[in-house]
Amino acid sequence: MTGKKLTASALRRTLRIIRPHLRRHTWLIIGGMAALLADVVFRILEPWPIKIAVDAVTAALGAQIAPTFGLDTGVGTTLAVVAIGLAVIVGGRAAANYTSTICFALVGARVATQLRSRVFDHVQSLSLRYHSKASIGDTSQRLVGDIGRLQEVAVTAGLPLVGNVITLAVLLVVMVVLDPVLSAIVLATAGVYGLLSKAATPKITKASRSTRKGEGRLVGSAAEALGAIRVVQAYGLEKTVARDFADGNERALKAGVRARRLAAGLERSTDVLVGISQALVLAFGGWQVLRGAMSPGDLVLFLLYLKIAMKPLRDMAKYTGRIARAAASGERIADLLDEPVEIADAPDAVTMGPVCGDVVFNQVTSTDGHGRP
Amino acid sequence: MTGKKLTASALRRTLRIIRPHLRRHTWLIIGGMAALLADVVFRILEPWPIKIAVDAVTAALGAQIAPTFGLDTGVGTTLAVVAIGLAVIVGGRAAANYTSTICFALVGARVATQLRSRVFDHVQSLSLRYHSKASIGDTSQRLVGDIGRLQEVAVTAGLPLVGNVITLAVLLVVMVVLDPVLSAIVLATAGVYGLLSKAATPKITKASRSTRKGEGRLVGSAAEALGAIRVVQAYGLEKTVARDFADGNERALKAGVRARRLAAGLERSTDVLVGISQALVLAFGGWQVLRGAMSPGDLVLFLLYLKIAMKPLRDMAKYTGRIARAAASGERIADLLDEPVEIADAPDAVTMGPVCGDVVFNQVTSTDGHGRP
Repeated sequence: MTGKKLTASALRRTLRIIRPHLRRHTWLIIGGMAALLADVVFRILEPWPIKIAVDAVTAALGAQIAPTFGLDTGVGTTLAVVAIGLAVIVGGRAAANYTSTICFALVGARVATQLRSRVFDHVQSLSLRYHSKASIGDTSQRLVGDIGRLQEVAVTAGLPLVGNVITLAVLLVVMVVLDPVLSAIVLATAGVYGLLSKAATPKITKASRSTRKGEGRLVGSAAEALGAIRVVQAYGLEKTVARDFADGNERALKAGVRARRLAAGLERSTDVLVGISQALVLAFGGWQVLRGAMSPGDLVLFLLYLKIAMKPLRDMAKYTGRIARAAASGERIADLLDEPVEIADAPDAVTMGPVCGDVVFNQVTSTDGHGRP
Repeated sequence: MTGKKLTASALRRTLRIIRPHLRRHTWLIIGGMAALLADVVFRILEPWPIKIAVDAVTAALGAQIAPTFGLDTGVGTTLAVVAIGLAVIVGGRAAANYTSTICFALVGARVATQLRSRVFDHVQSLSLRYHSKASIGDTSQRLVGDIGRLQEVAVTAGLPLVGNVITLAVLLVVMVVLDPVLSAIVLATAGVYGLLSKAATPKITKASRSTRKGEGRLVGSAAEALGAIRVVQAYGLEKTVARDFADGNERALKAGVRARRLAAGLERSTDVLVGISQALVLAFGGWQVLRGAMSPGDLVLFLLYLKIAMKPLRDMAKYTGRIARAAASGERIADLLDEPVEIADAPDAVTMGPVCGDVVFNQVTSTDGHGRP
């Protein structure tokens, strides 16, 4: 709970430092959003040619189904039109996706450039009191590494996350219009998945963190043993040291296996969940087709939509983890920007005009190193 | 070309240091391979229930298609059987995948444990001449970090790569048996994709490497400016320094956008390729259905197989990149193991028995620090 609250506040602070830079790129952002929306629309349209083709073919084989989209011009023409349509949709989706990726990558790069310059200027204006205390390595890491990660994650996780959420919302509406019962199955699957991943994710995070910690300790113990190698070799202590190292080694690797087991468990239970919901859609959908409420193409369409809906859900956990780590980077940058500038101009300061004059040393004495004037 | 040769030799050396440890885990490896094969079989079986359901439903609607699998027991029963079958297949696949992941994770962890101990023992037995020259940080990094990465990549990239290759091979056979013409389309798609990715991957690697290099330089220039902050502030050089920093900054970010553009280009052209081949399968497959050579279910089956085949192809580039990086780690470990043990027992050395006696100082003189005896 507290972890989540921390992330939320870090995310708010991160957005606050980024927001002023976004305004200059309004057109690029609007273009990116438009391309993103086009991408979603094409994604939703993609399975339709397959549906129409299946319906046309089965109707041609003599099945009794209501004609869809008034394509009564003969099956051959329908197939050709549908194939071309599919190619156009896929091409459009690729173009839209490419455009949105590049637009947002450009925005990300430009905002990062400006933010880095702003932070650099701020750091340069800080007093020497700050600079004597602060670590140069840490500050330059914040300037380059943390801002770089922020940009990277915004483009490769934040953007797809937004796209996924929009896709899921639109998909839900389309499915409810097509068939409410089947949509309920899909929705229930998504809900159960959400619960599963909410329960498993913290455990996975904890296990992989303890793996990393164990590795860190292991590096420490190896370095210690190697640093004392003279003593170890002189007294023949190699076996004792090796035993200690092996203990830590085994512990770290057990933690690693545990993390992998948890992650695999989550992935596999997701697969089972999707499988069960596919089976339900297949059974109910088949029955709907027999009742005449759906065409065979609609059944295929629903199965494809189920797959399309599950991918964003599965990615969600991955993206949110990365965004939480980026928010931590954002907070480190915000901390740096919040460092007060101690030597600041007073609000009523006047600009210093050209200055001329001499520095005169008048009756100034100074002692040398031995106290003599 | 040389880069590839280097990777191949690094991979060979890596395998040579791992091989002796694998023998002890023969049963775990056999179990993991069996589970992997079961996983592949289930993956190939997964679309079949959908195909059967589509065929059964269209036949029930009055389409003239040859009955498949002799399921003439009424559509309702068929649908129920097919739905249960799908659930069973998905469950089996999840179980097989989980088992193989855990088996290989265990093998990986145990091999890593033994390898680490072996390398640690070797390092401990090296002469002081080596230890005075070698960096403790580097050696412990090789012991922990490089072995850890080797294990990680073997389990999360090597294993899926093997699974993908087997899946593609089996899938190809199944598709050729089902319909040679459509298989040729799928095969051509895979070939073109291979060419595309082969052309684009080195460029992407180069661009992302130059991004990382730019960031490294930027960290250096920031650290330099911060280290000289007293001089900078004293002479009011903030603007000059900031301009220099901004230059490097902009260059690094431009390289980043370039890498992202190349990667997005490859991904999108893959999408277009898959879309075109889907369209071809749809058109030709539809025609085959109309000729009576295929059922509508077969058409759906092929479209699903096309999707299944493209995923491993797409992952391949990702996995090979990670394996190349892991081979570099393996080489660093092999270098450490190849370091000769200078103080070694002679081949005809005899074991030293229990020793007794006194150390006697006889006419030994030593000078103190000022040359006096």
